[in-house]
Amino acid sequence: MSEVPEGGSVSLTRQEWVGDAPRSCDDHVAAEAPLEIRIGGVPVAVVMRTPGHDEDLVRGFLLSERIANGHDAIVSVRHCTEVDTPEAEDNVVQVRLDHPVDLAALRRNLFASSSCGVCGKASIERAMAHAGPVEQRLSVKPESLYALPARLEAGQAGFETTGGVHAAALFDATLQTLAIREDVGRHNAVDKVLGAAARMNTPGAALMVSGRVSFEIVQKALACGVELIAAVSAPTSLAVQLARESGITLAAFLRARRMCVYAGESRIQA
Amino acid sequence: MSEVPEGGSVSLTRQEWVGDAPRSCDDHVAAEAPLEIRIGGVPVAVVMRTPGHDEDLVRGFLLSERIANGHDAIVSVRHCTEVDTPEAEDNVVQVRLDHPVDLAALRRNLFASSSCGVCGKASIERAMAHAGPVEQRLSVKPESLYALPARLEAGQAGFETTGGVHAAALFDATLQTLAIREDVGRHNAVDKVLGAAARMNTPGAALMVSGRVSFEIVQKALACGVELIAAVSAPTSLAVQLARESGITLAAFLRARRMCVYAGESRIQA
Repeated sequence: MSEVPEGGSVSLTRQEWVGDAPRSCDDHVAAEAPLEIRIGGVPVAVVMRTPGHDEDLVRGFLLSERIANGHDAIVSVRHCTEVDTPEAEDNVVQVRLDHPVDLAALRRNLFASSSCGVCGKASIERAMAHAGPVEQRLSVKPESLYALPARLEAGQAGFETTGGVHAAALFDATLQTLAIREDVGRHNAVDKVLGAAARMNTPGAALMVSGRVSFEIVQKALACGVELIAAVSAPTSLAVQLARESGITLAAFLRARRMCVYAGESRIQA
Repeated sequence: MSEVPEGGSVSLTRQEWVGDAPRSCDDHVAAEAPLEIRIGGVPVAVVMRTPGHDEDLVRGFLLSERIANGHDAIVSVRHCTEVDTPEAEDNVVQVRLDHPVDLAALRRNLFASSSCGVCGKASIERAMAHAGPVEQRLSVKPESLYALPARLEAGQAGFETTGGVHAAALFDATLQTLAIREDVGRHNAVDKVLGAAARMNTPGAALMVSGRVSFEIVQKALACGVELIAAVSAPTSLAVQLARESGITLAAFLRARRMCVYAGESRIQA
């Protein structure tokens, strides 16, 4: 897996399944990496973003979050050179404003949202830290995975009504449904099924999401011991990396007896 | 617009355009409201969520963010009654854990992400605070709006490659393209085009996004003086509410010479 994103994507090799037949092929996934924003040397935010146009991202963030008093107030936005590694240089931006910011208040108010599971990390190092590896109890047939999207859709009342909600489903090790939940925030839908399973004292083994799989989704699954993540849509580069390192199976683009498996292939046996 | 969500959706009346002909009709949008999570009385996070299954959401959040040391450590999760209004009772949850949490460190580490623009609000009241109303300089024909998705797609190199990125485009008052950007985070894509326009000293008048429109997207647009938001997919209830209160035009489900207009109808003239 290439470490250096080119044009916002990362190349890798993954399994492609059509019916019962897997084959290995090359693919590109959207690049995802943390960016730490510092104001006057003090870290104020870590955002998970696709590298590129970082200066525009930071200027827009400062304005749209009303941290800077207008664009003229932004004196400079530069990648930081006073960090330990070249990779960190790419992922840390130093901002200078022409007015003071109450950093204590800013940090106090920049609360986490469950739509940004990685916010709970004080630094890039912490954002990349993870538990694991997960257990290896689960073994599934491809046909069982192909059946999951329909089972998720069956529980998606809100999507039919509004067209505007994400859904997540959690299954036990025999792929019995433990919970299906919808939410405007895709991370919230995941938290809701993980919370429901915890409340029932029944650990989840497999998670299905209606959308894409980002780093934070894998991180949440990992924290709750989930062994397999299935998704209707695409994964990000950092999601694949974390799934591979933690031993989680990641099956994406799950549609009509086809899927792409990016990590943990050994749990899937035809 | 109904204030009380039923089954995760809110009913409202909006314009539906087919070609040059608007008509008024009833619709449902996904419910979105802030939820403040308090531990031992101290607010630690505000998440924008669809009301319902709040206890599951909070339990899952505490576990997946590794704030609670396992599910047994969660003593209780209850909607808070010591708040001022019945609405706040619905939107504040009090948590008790059987172990101490370093709240200072937790807050310091629960950094904002641009994938959660509302995180910068210390409380529900602040989350709902907004500037406005925006100016009324823009006037557009429906045909001009119908042309925007193709113009956005033309700039979406990453989506073709990976199928896994969001895109945003910013236009001036004559609908000339100022910037098109892609990102794994949809809020990042918006910040990138807002930042690019600010850097060029050319204010954006209209914003087009590839996905859905949540509260945070409207909040970001409002902070940068954007008058119109167009989207391929659905809006949330709180996005519609903020657009209506701030005077922003919100056109969603923009596909093949059709669209639904949820706010600021007067800027669109056939």
